Amino acid sequence: MRISELGRTTKVPVATIKFYLREGLLPEGLLTSATQAQYGETHVARLRLIRALLGPGGLSIVKARQVLQAIDHPPESVHDLLGVAADAVSGPAGDRRDHPRVHQLMATWGWSLDDGHCPTHGALESALDALDAAEFELPAGALDHYRDQMTAVAQAEIDGVPIDSPAAAVRYVVLGTVLIEPVLLALRRMAQQEISRRRFADLPRSD
Amino acid sequence: MRISELGRTTKVPVATIKFYLREGLLPEGLLTSATQAQYGETHVARLRLIRALLGPGGLSIVKARQVLQAIDHPPESVHDLLGVAADAVSGPAGDRRDHPRVHQLMATWGWSLDDGHCPTHGALESALDALDAAEFELPAGALDHYRDQMTAVAQAEIDGVPIDSPAAAVRYVVLGTVLIEPVLLALRRMAQQEISRRRFADLPRSD
Repeated sequence: MRISELGRTTKVPVATIKFYLREGLLPEGLLTSATQAQYGETHVARLRLIRALLGPGGLSIVKARQVLQAIDHPPESVHDLLGVAADAVSGPAGDRRDHPRVHQLMATWGWSLDDGHCPTHGALESALDALDAAEFELPAGALDHYRDQMTAVAQAEIDGVPIDSPAAAVRYVVLGTVLIEPVLLALRRMAQQEISRRRFADLPRSD
Repeated sequence: MRISELGRTTKVPVATIKFYLREGLLPEGLLTSATQAQYGETHVARLRLIRALLGPGGLSIVKARQVLQAIDHPPESVHDLLGVAADAVSGPAGDRRDHPRVHQLMATWGWSLDDGHCPTHGALESALDALDAAEFELPAGALDHYRDQMTAVAQAEIDGVPIDSPAAAVRYVVLGTVLIEPVLLALRRMAQQEISRRRFADLPRSD
């Protein structure tokens, strides 16, 4: 199909499709003349994926390009897939590069410490710094409790990784990491509201 | 203390302090002459809180102002505190205002449906839409599993709300909602990596 039909099929404006082509997010079509190219079902699927990553997924162009490159060129081992996912969706610039408290936690928990470069460790260290900076003291045992719940979440997710196809595995891990985060955060808030409602609904402030 | 000393004490540039004053994030000091004001410990504490919200907390100026206003003017009932928190940290513009699937889930789970205005419901509906748009199919029972883990998280958090002081309660809920989210997300990713390492470390791709 021509680019105009690709736009109609996917409901993406042609100017936007051309932007994705220039940014290297969408592969070029097959040139049928000096000024015309043909696009196929792979372009339709890729366009839908791009829209999901940039829109509800909330990724920047740069991050989306990293994710798409990981899908197109999967790393060597299944375990490396998760590293790609963590890198692609790593925290904001300025996350700490050293992480003494996380190192200590990992040792206490018996978790592996061998990751020299791990943006996720920096993200956790920064998050703990932020709690300190706001003088927000976590209750005793809170981190262990969070670890247990997130381990139960992660266990089910790792169980579901399709290991027979690296492309499918990368896609599952990268999209799952990015797109399930807002699901978890929304469910936490809804659960807070539900539990709060049951407990406090008719309880006025005490002052 | 004068504004220059407030800056030295908190390590915040005076120009930045003046910006927070203009934006209404930081209350004015006590005027001691037409051009000089005195600041106290409450300003030091507030400045540290502002830096935590805008920096690692990742809030915009507008969101931070909402959070600070909630801390300064707590709502009527303890339950309303969580509503303030959810509003202050609600999802990006464009989250859906109708939410048929979330409504259905809540009914299935026996959760209350009486929230006419709930940005969190819209955020979850948008997150489910994003999974669809990316053609990412959640495994059977995955949402129920996520709900159970997030309920366990929320239960401990609601247990910890200090209900004797509305200001302390709002501060706990708002900051806890915002600042613990990156902790949970980092722990999920670290748990994924840990579980993946144990399971797949030496397993090459099958193709």
